[in-house]
This record gives sequence, structure tokens and C-alpha cells, in this order.
Amino acid sequence: MALYGGIEAGGTKFVCAAATGPGDIRAQVRIPTTTPKETLGAAIGFFRSLGLPLDAVGISCFGPLDLRDASPTWGYITTTPKPGWQNVDVAQRIAHALATPVAIDTDVNGAALAEQRWGAGQGLDDLVYLTVGTGIGGGAIVNGAPVHGLMHPEMGHMRIPHDRAIDPFDGNCPFHGDCLEGLASGHSLQERWGVPAEELPADHVAWEIEARHLAHGIVGITTVLSPQRVIVGGSVMKREQLFPLIRREALALLNGYLQVSAILDGIDTYIAPPALGDQAGVLGAIALAEAALNQIA
Amino acid sequence: MALYGGIEAGGTKFVCAAATGPGDIRAQVRIPTTTPKETLGAAIGFFRSLGLPLDAVGISCFGPLDLRDASPTWGYITTTPKPGWQNVDVAQRIAHALATPVAIDTDVNGAALAEQRWGAGQGLDDLVYLTVGTGIGGGAIVNGAPVHGLMHPEMGHMRIPHDRAIDPFDGNCPFHGDCLEGLASGHSLQERWGVPAEELPADHVAWEIEARHLAHGIVGITTVLSPQRVIVGGSVMKREQLFPLIRREALALLNGYLQVSAILDGIDTYIAPPALGDQAGVLGAIALAEAALNQIA
Repeated sequence: MALYGGIEAGGTKFVCAAATGPGDIRAQVRIPTTTPKETLGAAIGFFRSLGLPLDAVGISCFGPLDLRDASPTWGYITTTPKPGWQNVDVAQRIAHALATPVAIDTDVNGAALAEQRWGAGQGLDDLVYLTVGTGIGGGAIVNGAPVHGLMHPEMGHMRIPHDRAIDPFDGNCPFHGDCLEGLASGHSLQERWGVPAEELPADHVAWEIEARHLAHGIVGITTVLSPQRVIVGGSVMKREQLFPLIRREALALLNGYLQVSAILDGIDTYIAPPALGDQAGVLGAIALAEAALNQIA
Repeated sequence: MALYGGIEAGGTKFVCAAATGPGDIRAQVRIPTTTPKETLGAAIGFFRSLGLPLDAVGISCFGPLDLRDASPTWGYITTTPKPGWQNVDVAQRIAHALATPVAIDTDVNGAALAEQRWGAGQGLDDLVYLTVGTGIGGGAIVNGAPVHGLMHPEMGHMRIPHDRAIDPFDGNCPFHGDCLEGLASGHSLQERWGVPAEELPADHVAWEIEARHLAHGIVGITTVLSPQRVIVGGSVMKREQLFPLIRREALALLNGYLQVSAILDGIDTYIAPPALGDQAGVLGAIALAEAALNQIA
């Protein structure tokens, strides 16, 4: 049985684990994200300290990332706003230090892969994982493999219709103002309403507006990518009342155009919560390692 | 050298061809689209009359289509508004009549494949072909293969921001009003301005508005799918002045967020006209046949 290393590389913490799969995590550690040298050094130190040979390491990483196979800067974080982390080699450094095959992908592609492998997307070849947290991002699996393309999807920056009669907020994306992230991220909710999203009462009008924005995003994803399921996770989605509201709005927006029973009769599973909870991040990294090893084998 | 049959199955005409590739079309016929029995019968008759053994037949077809491999109605046109063509078996009937392996896909996926194989997308694994004609549709190649997912993309029905101060037209999509197709298709232009698009003068304000709508669509596609190129064809795009306008608007909408040289320095090739012209449709069908044969082999 193969042993995998997984690194969930986030902007505030790195979670590292060694596991054969989701039911068998042998060791796990949480490292604060400080400088690349310190944080990557601690991650490498953790895996070395285990004294176990790893068959592959997967890295589920904040971005943007260079994922072009042939690129000399493959596996680098590129233009992130996070101070000190621009143009930082992550994957090549880990591969060299641990002398192991390494796979790297966006955190959302990792989560999509983990949900497909062990969670809410089992048996599906085409799915999207959308996270609605401080920011908004989306990962996609098409024909069984993660989507990279030119770079990787940046679904949070989709432009959506913005009815200012319903929501006069200008949006707070520094690049686009009222893109999906600018209108519907946790950061946007906090700026708009003056309190963190988790403090907004359940009957606050914010949730109807939020559901409408997110439904617009999901309808955009559905028309462009035609996934078999859209899994929606992230801290904002812990407010589970959002799901029925989003589903209702998405059906209204589609207005019967897509005559498929998975949507018309199955909207409760078409727009679904994730199944892996807080472990999705590190399991995404493990799933990437597993996929990398399968590709080599 | 394999000989392929290709059927470009459109709402007004079927174009059938036998070819080994784009430079070697051995026979071609154009059949008006009347009833399924008559039109499909004529197509089958054409191929039989050649007296040549075909290695595979590809069908690039108007939709929506059932493309699920395991479905008993695989290869059927499903809920089209075209009278007489709902729930019509196309692919299975052709396969049976010609005793040949058959591939079927949407007309836009076929065009995407043809442009990738022989046209404006050569060497790319991830691209989108968007057609702006009477309606608007998009096909996508991801990791080298056409995207189907739940059904197939329906990019024309993406919702886009609609600034009524610039464009007060309500849109004319019977399902969604002001979706991309409702605002920017040839049919919409005609309803909006009272003349066919090709009669609008080059300096008409319609083109600035059209470019803005199409840029919104392309930016939506870019954020969701991250293609390496978006090829934009169809009758409306014969107005080539649209390309520089669309490129300018797309760059303005992205506002430097995607720091990739293919967009920042290469927008003229990122948003590109097709290279195959009026042959794209039937060559798409030939490309589908070729892909089907390669998959078998």
C-alpha cells in the first residue's frame, strides 16, 4: 500500500499529512504560514522526521500557480498579493528536498479531486468544487482530470449580473469591483454589512442576496462547463440555509432551458455541500499525490 | 489512409462529405433539412451511392443532444425547438444504416476539434470555439478532448452583466431574456436594430455594444474554463472590425488580474478568428470521425 505525503498550502497555515488514504492518516502537523523559507522548511522537516519513505507528495496550494508542465517555473506561486510569496518555488523545492515525485495543483482543484475520490462527487467524471470563504475560487474536473488550460480557472472573478436595486453595494474586488468574489465572498459580506458573515442572523436579508449572487455564479459555471455536479464549500457555506435558497434561484435563472433530470428533478444533489469537511484540503493533497503516482505507474 | 464520412447536421442544411482529411475531400453534397426521415435518408443514400468503404462517420449536429455513452438514446437530438426534430435518433440510425463506427457531438464541439486539428487552434490542448450567428453557442476542448459533462456546454445562455444605460434592449431569448444569446446573437441584433446585422453600417453604435457583450461572454469563459485560446466564428463575426473592439473590452474587464503573457501580450491570438471558414462545419464532422477511429484503434 502506497504512503502519500499531502501538503495543504494555505495563506494562513500549511497542513501536512502522511496517509495511505482518508481513513488512515499516519501523522499530521499544522504549520503557520510565515515566510517561504521558514514554512516550506518546516514542512520538509516534518516529512523527513517521519523516517518513512513516501511514494509521492501532493501539494494543494493557494495561487495563482504556474502549472505548465514544461515551464522552468512549474510549481511556483506566481503573482499572489501575499507579501513575500510572489514567484516562490514550492513544488520543485519539495521534490528536490524529499527526492519524491511531486504533484501540485490549486487548492480548489485538490478539493474537487478529493470530493470526487472520497466525498460528494464519487462516480462523477465532471464536477466543479466552488469555495465561498474569504475569497471565492473554483476547481474543475473534466473527463476525470483537473482543468488547467492557460493557467487555471479563476471562477471567483467571473462577472455576474448585478441588480443594484436589490444590492446597491459596489463590490470590493480590487481588480473588478462587482465580480462574483467582489459581491459574494466572506470578505465582501463583512465589508457590506459591517460584521463577519457568521454573525449575520439567519433571517437577515443578506442571505437572499448572497444566494442570488452565488446562483448567478453557478449558472455561469453550468452553461460554460456543463458539470455533473457543483459542490459548494468554504466557510460561508457553513450557513446551510443558503443551499435551498441558491437552488431555488438557480432553477429560476435557468428557467427550464436545460432539460436534464439531474437539474430539473435533482437540484438538491446537483448543487451539493461537500462531504469531507475540514479535511478536504489535506485530502485534496493526498488525492493529488495518488493521481501523480498512478500517472507514473 | 482512412476514409471518413462527415455530416454537418444543421437546422437548415446537412452537408455530407467523404474525405481523408481537409485537403482531400472526395465527394460532398448539400441536403436541405426537411423531415428527419427525408433528410437522414438522403444522407445515408449519398454515402451508400459512393460505393466506398468508410472507416468511420462523424456527425457534427445541432442540439441539444444526448451524448451520454451508456444512454439508450445516445446520439438523439432531444428538446430542440425545430418542429419534427424532437427526440430524433440521428447517430444510431446512421451507424446501423452504414454499418460503420459513428461519433456524434455538438456542431460547436466539432468546429472546436476541427480548428484544433487543422485550423486556428493547432498545438493547443485547451480551447473554446464560440459561434456568434443566428444564435450563440460554444464548444470546448479540455485536456485534448471535447467537453460534455452533464449534457454539453450551452455557453450562449450564460448570464452577463447588462448595463441598460448603454443597452436598454431587454434581450430576446425566450427563456432568459438578456442572456448572452438574447443580447448579442444575430437574431437579437436584428430585433434590436430592425435590420439584419450584415446591413448595419461599420460605424454604427451597435458594434461597440456588441463587442462589450461578447467580451463579457469571453471573460466568463476565461474565468471558468481557462482556455488557451478562444476562437470566435459565426456569421456575425464576419464583421471583422469586431475583433479589436472585443479584445479591448476583454482586457478592460480583466483589468490585469490574469497575469499571463498569452492574454496581456497576446490578446490578438488569444481571441482569434477561425481559420477554416465555411468548411469548419463539415471538417468538424471529419475530425470527429477521425477521433472516433483513433479511439477504437
